[in-house]
Amino acid sequence: MSEKLAYRKIENAGITLVQGIQAAAVHCGLKKRKLDLALVYSSRDCAAAGVFTRNRVQAAPVRLCRKAIAGPIRALVVNSGNANACTGEAGMQNARRMAALAAASLGLSPAQVLVCSTGVIGQQLPMELVERGIARAAEALSGERKAGRAAARAILTTDTVAKEVAYRGTYGGATFHLAGMAKGSGMICPDMATMLAFLFTDLAIPRPLLQRLFREAVDRSFNLITVDGDTSTNDTALILANGAAGAPEITPGSEACRAFAELLEEACRDLAYQIVADGEGVTKVITLTLQGAPDPLSARILARAVLNSPLVKTAFYGEDANWGRILAALGYAGVDFDPSRVDIYLGPVQVAAGGEAVPFSESEARAVLQQKEVPVLVRLNAGSCSLTAWGSDLSHNYVTINSSYRS
Amino acid sequence: MSEKLAYRKIENAGITLVQGIQAAAVHCGLKKRKLDLALVYSSRDCAAAGVFTRNRVQAAPVRLCRKAIAGPIRALVVNSGNANACTGEAGMQNARRMAALAAASLGLSPAQVLVCSTGVIGQQLPMELVERGIARAAEALSGERKAGRAAARAILTTDTVAKEVAYRGTYGGATFHLAGMAKGSGMICPDMATMLAFLFTDLAIPRPLLQRLFREAVDRSFNLITVDGDTSTNDTALILANGAAGAPEITPGSEACRAFAELLEEACRDLAYQIVADGEGVTKVITLTLQGAPDPLSARILARAVLNSPLVKTAFYGEDANWGRILAALGYAGVDFDPSRVDIYLGPVQVAAGGEAVPFSESEARAVLQQKEVPVLVRLNAGSCSLTAWGSDLSHNYVTINSSYRS
Repeated sequence: MSEKLAYRKIENAGITLVQGIQAAAVHCGLKKRKLDLALVYSSRDCAAAGVFTRNRVQAAPVRLCRKAIAGPIRALVVNSGNANACTGEAGMQNARRMAALAAASLGLSPAQVLVCSTGVIGQQLPMELVERGIARAAEALSGERKAGRAAARAILTTDTVAKEVAYRGTYGGATFHLAGMAKGSGMICPDMATMLAFLFTDLAIPRPLLQRLFREAVDRSFNLITVDGDTSTNDTALILANGAAGAPEITPGSEACRAFAELLEEACRDLAYQIVADGEGVTKVITLTLQGAPDPLSARILARAVLNSPLVKTAFYGEDANWGRILAALGYAGVDFDPSRVDIYLGPVQVAAGGEAVPFSESEARAVLQQKEVPVLVRLNAGSCSLTAWGSDLSHNYVTINSSYRS
Repeated sequence: MSEKLAYRKIENAGITLVQGIQAAAVHCGLKKRKLDLALVYSSRDCAAAGVFTRNRVQAAPVRLCRKAIAGPIRALVVNSGNANACTGEAGMQNARRMAALAAASLGLSPAQVLVCSTGVIGQQLPMELVERGIARAAEALSGERKAGRAAARAILTTDTVAKEVAYRGTYGGATFHLAGMAKGSGMICPDMATMLAFLFTDLAIPRPLLQRLFREAVDRSFNLITVDGDTSTNDTALILANGAAGAPEITPGSEACRAFAELLEEACRDLAYQIVADGEGVTKVITLTLQGAPDPLSARILARAVLNSPLVKTAFYGEDANWGRILAALGYAGVDFDPSRVDIYLGPVQVAAGGEAVPFSESEARAVLQQKEVPVLVRLNAGSCSLTAWGSDLSHNYVTINSSYRS
């Protein structure tokens, strides 16, 4: 019996892989046809940690969750189709009512239920639909694979595919799991958890440690992706740890803690990458590695400037090796660096050296740009910090999707 | 004979309206067919003032101009089709050589010539083409209307129309003029002079005063427009004052100084608006008025966040009254304000009050959104600063233009 924490990824599995976790999804009528309400239930109290939007405009459920995660949690209710944002006191009452309805259906107290909403801003939730939906979902709770899969579908808005990730591992002689689901397609930007992501584990982890590890994992995953630079009123990433695996509690500074932190980061990166790849109108993912930045914050700001630049994004869409736009975006980021020391590579093809053009094969560059994932390396030669961030191109389809989302 | 400075706008006129100013434009081969080199000559020494890009990556001609405007100026040479940016020491030598070639053709010293370039980044100028072009332009200099018009066309890149403005006025018994031309269509963002703009006047204004008045006018015009949030390596706004009108010199603090400042701001706004209206793929101009901001800098940051948001811009393109996206963009701008006090209007139609939805007529809102210019009013109710800024929508055509610009 080994003490060491080891794990492997499980394909085609989701949150119900986690012991003690049940899920359900229903169509309650917030969307025309698709699943629009998910309920997740844990048979045991969970330690909860969360990372929330830094937008000054915070949706009612975000304000509710921020407080609620301090206590033990047993359930999570999520609706799509309506963000319950910019809805004032009535919106706050509706968020609280969602918690109370779920609690009543499940025999819990409202304080044990977390609430999330995503969708259109500025409209009140039709609570009679939500009420019936929660009641039906509570009756449908199940630990089966298909229940987790349905929940992952019910939280989507303009996403085209469900985003799930699952791992199985061993620790202290017990088998444990970590699994998650996420949604996010537009309004995606690094600097906060700009989407919904829900992770569950049957390991036991004390809340303060869980919060610290989750914050770090989010910073290295969800906070390094961008689709359009917008950040929403509802962004929330949550993790619930219920200890149902029966493994020893993870303690700060332990070998197991380091291994779990690695697993958590890997799981978050997996979901983050799925979000970018399914970004609105995305035809390719740009994996930008910045090397030699003066400090970590500068690296983040520079990566964000490049990956949010409409000119960079449209050049990638057009499969055009227009590296000047990358250098120009770095230049206006507001970070001090010497442009005449910058090297730029598209995949293995060097396109700029010392801030100037170098001869390169347009056909080799185009071959890189035609890939579904385009690796870009920028060497700033201004320090020792490195960072990899993920972005997307900007396509005609992005415009189509977003010029008609509300209507 | 009145001392008072008075003026009126002259339609269908350009820089050659200004006394002592001659212009020429040629096709030298940097573009396939269109005019790509402009030369402007003043018969008298000009006081020069300039506002330049704050991008860390500064094109060679920008670095040259920054220094050169300190002395008396007699000519300006501008090429389009090649930005001479990210071109290293060879690029700097080429910029100096453009000044020397123009000076030699005009019997001036190189220090009396300003140089600007705009176009693709990262390619060396084909100097033999530029050399022949400058020689031909020097021979073609003319004070005729059509020469100024040709110069205004020669500085364009992806612009679809030339941008000109002209005024005639009287001061101290003399007739004077102020006229300008500009280019800019992509890489347009408030925060610096993100385009090329060249203004000329035959008034006499001491250089320090001219610089101060021009800086203020640029801040209230070119620095309040945005097309895509990108800022370029080459952005330059220049004004040359040659005193050829024979009017009294404008002195600081005078009534005439205030009137000229107003004229200069009006001229810059006119050109700035033309730039936005001709922005890449633009189908409508968004005129955003922010009222009740806590301070001027916050107002600028908030306006920029709204007008740069891809979600806001695509909603306007889709003529969708999706005000939640405006509030969300305000929210992530990083400025402290209370979202629950924000009112939003589309034209006369109030769509949000106190940060929440108010019932409004979708058809009335749509009528506003279908206009070529859409006025948006945001009342923050957080202070006493107001600001009007101009932006554009984000269309399919923006993507088309920018996914194939370099190739």
